[in-house]
Formats: sequence, C-alpha cells, structure tokens
Amino acid sequence: MSDVTQAAPQAPTQPVRKPRVMSGMRVTGRLHIGHYFGALQNWVQLQDEYECFFGAMDWHGMTTAYKSPKEIAPWTREMIAEFIAWGVDPEKCTLFVQSQIPEHIELFMIFANITPMGWLERVNTWKDAVEEMKATDTHNLGRFAYPVLQAADIAIYRAQKVPVGADQVSHLEISREIVRRFNHLYKAKLPEMNPMLTEIPLVTGLDGRKMSKSYGNTLYLTEDSEKDLKKKVNLMVTDPARVRREDVGEPSKCSVYGYHKLYSTAEDLQWVEAGCRSAGIGCGDCKARLSQNLEKISAGPREKKKELLNNPTQLDSIIAAGCAKARKEAQKTLDIVRSSMKWPEK
Amino acid sequence: MSDVTQAAPQAPTQPVRKPRVMSGMRVTGRLHIGHYFGALQNWVQLQDEYECFFGAMDWHGMTTAYKSPKEIAPWTREMIAEFIAWGVDPEKCTLFVQSQIPEHIELFMIFANITPMGWLERVNTWKDAVEEMKATDTHNLGRFAYPVLQAADIAIYRAQKVPVGADQVSHLEISREIVRRFNHLYKAKLPEMNPMLTEIPLVTGLDGRKMSKSYGNTLYLTEDSEKDLKKKVNLMVTDPARVRREDVGEPSKCSVYGYHKLYSTAEDLQWVEAGCRSAGIGCGDCKARLSQNLEKISAGPREKKKELLNNPTQLDSIIAAGCAKARKEAQKTLDIVRSSMKWPEK
Ligand code: SF4
Ligand code: SF4
Repeated sequence: MSDVTQAAPQAPTQPVRKPRVMSGMRVTGRLHIGHYFGALQNWVQLQDEYECFFGAMDWHGMTTAYKSPKEIAPWTREMIAEFIAWGVDPEKCTLFVQSQIPEHIELFMIFANITPMGWLERVNTWKDAVEEMKATDTHNLGRFAYPVLQAADIAIYRAQKVPVGADQVSHLEISREIVRRFNHLYKAKLPEMNPMLTEIPLVTGLDGRKMSKSYGNTLYLTEDSEKDLKKKVNLMVTDPARVRREDVGEPSKCSVYGYHKLYSTAEDLQWVEAGCRSAGIGCGDCKARLSQNLEKISAGPREKKKELLNNPTQLDSIIAAGCAKARKEAQKTLDIVRSSMKWPEK
Repeated sequence: MSDVTQAAPQAPTQPVRKPRVMSGMRVTGRLHIGHYFGALQNWVQLQDEYECFFGAMDWHGMTTAYKSPKEIAPWTREMIAEFIAWGVDPEKCTLFVQSQIPEHIELFMIFANITPMGWLERVNTWKDAVEEMKATDTHNLGRFAYPVLQAADIAIYRAQKVPVGADQVSHLEISREIVRRFNHLYKAKLPEMNPMLTEIPLVTGLDGRKMSKSYGNTLYLTEDSEKDLKKKVNLMVTDPARVRREDVGEPSKCSVYGYHKLYSTAEDLQWVEAGCRSAGIGCGDCKARLSQNLEKISAGPREKKKELLNNPTQLDSIIAAGCAKARKEAQKTLDIVRSSMKWPEK
C-alpha cells in the first residue's frame, strides 16, 4: 500500500492546497501510552505537512460505553486537552468533537441507504470485531453500523488520506467501497480515502500482556504522576533469568527494555543492552533510568494538560473554534453531497 | 389492543394537555386514495382531539428511493400540500418534514447503540419486510435499521399514541421495546407509544389487484383530473356475470361497488345495490355516478392543492413554521434524553 498521494478528485468549490488527512480517536477513557504511539505522535508530524482534521469520536465511544454515557463528556474534554498537551496544535489543524458536527450522522444516514447489508455482515464476522463485541456486550445496531459511520467521518471532510496501522487497512476498504458506490449512484466525485500506512509500535502492558484498562497494566499518558510512573515501572516484569543482581539478562525478553526502546535515547539503549547482558547494571538502575526518561517526556505535557483543564473557558473556546471550523467544512461537503443527489435540504 | 389512553409518564418540564399523537407518511411518490383512507381522513379527525405531529417522512422515503433521490424533495413538498388540501390544518396540528428536524437522526443514533441486533434480525424476517426489500432492491443498512428510526420518529415528540392498522401493531412493538430499554438503562421516563387501532379499509386497484404504482391501477388523490377520473372509472372491472345490460349483477363481486362504499352516500349505495341486482341500472350509469361522487370529493382538495403549489412562498412558510414548531419540541426531548443519559451536548 503506497503512502504517496493519489490525485484524488476534488470538489470544484474548494481547492485544497495540501492533501487532506482525517484521523479520529474513539473516546473510551483516559489515553495511555499506546495511544501516544498509535496516533498522537504521528498527528504531530502530520499537521505540518497536511491539512489535518483530528477528532475526538464520542459517537463511536458511545457504541461501547452505552451503559455509562456520563463518562463520555468529561473524557472527550480531557481527550482534546491531551491532544493539545502532546503537541497537536489547534492553529495548525482542525480539532473537533464528533457529536458536535451533526453532518457526520447526516452523511451516515445517506450512506446507510446505499450500504448493502452483506458488506457489513462480512466486516462484522472479522475476528477482532467479534471479540470486541463479546468483550463489551455490544452486539447492537450501533456497533454493527460502525463502519458506515466511519466512512461518513472521513468523507464528511473529503479527506484523501487516513493514517492506519497495517491491520486496519482492510477496515478502511469498506469506507472506500461506500464512497465508490455513492459516486457511482449519483455521478458524484467524493474523493476515495487512501490508507496512509503508519508503523504503530506494539506497546504491551506493564505485565507483558496486551495493555488494557481491565488488566490494570496501563501506563497513562499524563494521568500518572512522577510517583505513579516510578511505582508502575518498579512493578514491571523483567527477564525471569535475572534472579540475582549478578545474573546476566537478555533485554529482548524484558518489558522494561521494550519501553526503553520507545522512550529512551540510543545512548541509553546501548547502556541497557551492554549493562544487562554483562550484569553491569542492576534491574533497579535500569528501571530508574526508564522512570527518569518517562518523566522527562511526560512532565511538560502533564503540566500543559493541567493548565488547560484548569482554564475551562479557554479550553471551551479552543474546542468551539475547532468545531466551528470543522462544521463549516462538513456543511460544504453535505452541500456537495446533496447537490450530487439532487436532494436539496429545502 | 385498547384505544384508551394509558397514563404514560410525562417529562416534568412539559405538561401535555391533550394526549400526543405522532403519525408520519413515507415519501414514496404521489398520494393515491389508499393514502387518504389509510391516514389522511383519520388525521383530520385526530387533530381536533389530540396534540398531533404529522410528518412527511423523507428519510424513510430515501431507504427505497435511494436510486432516484431527486424525486424526494418535490414529492415531499407536494405531500405537505396534499395533507393541507384534504383538511389537515397546520393551525391545529404540527406538520413537519422529517429531514428538516435533525433530532430524529440524533435520537436514532442513540437508540442504535442500545438496540440489540437480534431484535432487528427478527423484524427483518417478517414476510412483508422481506417482500418489500426484494421488490425494491433495498437490502441495505438503511432499510434494516428502519424500525429504529421509526422508534426515534415517535419518541422525539414524546408521543403516547400512534394510529396504526391491525397489521402494523407488531411493527410498533419494537419501538416500545427500544423506549423501554432506554428507560431502563438510563432511569428515564420517555413515554411508551401505544397503538391506536385504526380501521383502514382495503382499497384495491382499478383492476381489483393491490393498488400499486407499478401495476398502473392507481387512483390519485388530486393528481387525476375530472377527465382522468372518468376514464379510469370506465376502465374498472365489473362483475363478470353482467355481460349484457339486461344481466343482473352482484355488487360484492365488483370493484366499482367497492369504491361506491368508500365514496358514495348511503342513498347512492342503495341505488347501486338494487339497480345492479335487478338490472335496473347499467354499469355505465353506475360508473357515471361513481365518477360524479369522486369528483365531488376531489374537486375542492384538487383546487386547494393547486393553489398551494402555485404559491410557493406561502407553502414554504407553512412548512417552515411547522418544522420550527416540531423542532422546538424535538430539541426539548433531546435535552431530556441527554440529561437522562448524563451526556450533555457541550
Ligand atoms: S537490566 Fe533492564 S533490560 Fe535487563 S532484565 Fe533488568 S530491567 Fe530488563
Ligand atoms: S352495476 Fe355497478 S356494481 Fe353492478 S356490476 Fe355494474 S358497475 Fe358493478
């Protein structure tokens, strides 16, 4: 799958200078470091090169959190603060909250009428979808229809590019199929969204298992204080062969090393590798260095996030401005959509 | 199923004086006389006794007309004109266009997240649903999700009563189940909608088969001119036993008589019955009388509808006023819904 911009057809009314990227994060709770490496870090790079629309997807959050929706609003707010704290710049990109842009669901309804059930039945038998539905008790219409809303989320900004991990490329294919069918039925020219392959390092939980809130093995991005970080790092599982200080270890068998690879400098990595294999350093030294490095990266964003959350008026106005900007573009798309269909709103 | 108002729980902020009724008509094209006897006639009566919300359901129209959406807007306009022409009074009830009230689809999205797929799979195996999907090539998500949108259409006005024919009672049950689940999950008090059993006379097509645009056997409400009515009535199938003028006939075997029962006075009915059974009248006389009676009923509405369509500004302002009234109520409901869920919009 190529990363090179395909000359996607543009709506004539809006000459887009830079290629347009859309990416969203489902509102499911606090962000952990998997989210940072999965999306945020990437977004910060993308915002300089592309015209980016980044969203906190609260409708998607609702598909799984439908039993406790009261968490959704504060989580959404915090998510936007977190985005900004880690360097996503509301001046460089358009930051929005999905449920604030009603055009998402309006386009969803239009797409729903042209999406064959067969396509959705196929997607919903995929292993990850089935597992997730079971785990979250969400064998509901909302969850089933998820891929159609996703197609609308992207198409409503006429985005040509969507950063995805290799395992998500097939999920994007149904969005492309829906847009293609729309274009075919209505002789329209909505751009097909292309995957922008993104390397997403696998961040395992503190215990080496998959990182998940329910396992309690999560490292939060900014919610964890310096003290929390230290405590959590100290609990991390190390190479089981290093029982005593003088036993040599093998970094590749150790979660601590996995984290060093993400958070530490090349110099530090060498120090760990050499020290571990020769028993030159102890696991305590190794963990202390990791904690320091984690703290070095987190301290700024943690402070910035606190500042944003302590200034609700400012944060609200950032969110409102982003949503207004997003909405304007979404309305423009909907005008294009409706005029292709010859179904004017009034 | 009882027609008596059940003491449905009311939202505390809006003391409803008269019980509230919601009814909608799917935008599928011009209205034929089946629509008049199926709904319009009933609406005209209901508007005096209840607080009524009557809608032209264009999103529902789109589920089947998705291949030719350009018809939807003019059909919707004409439909509202037709409602008014037949006596639905915008001063007495709230007349709205579904797609103009975005709260319908917002509530739909909320309901989608709590509607188990099993419920929809069940409904969608019903014989009439399957037949319709096949006939209209609409095995799409929109059609599949139809019952959830219908639940939202009713609940968004907190309607307690929905006029339905006997064969539609089970369709309403899923709306009730969704509202019950919503109330249970969020400790909310949306009123459950109750069916209001309505006798809907079976209006057959001119040829005695089911009335359907595709059979070309349709009598339109106002679209047919006096001349059209005459021509169509003349083509109607009569009792096959009356080959010659002097043969006696049996009215119950004749479509013409079926129409007389709907459109003619008791006096005329007696005249037909006696005259047919004794060969005292000819089929020509009988049909001429029917045409006259049809014209008597249609002339006024036909004129009124023409007047409305010739005054686009006036019609637009009626539609806009109705939608504004409906929207206010829909927003109130959505506020109640969101505050029960503790998911504020901002
Ligand atoms: S020294 Fe570091 S890399 Fe080696 S086992 Fe201990 S914690 Fe793991
Ligand atoms: S007289 Fe009238 S009711 Fe009798 S067969 Fe003729 S058309 Fe039918």
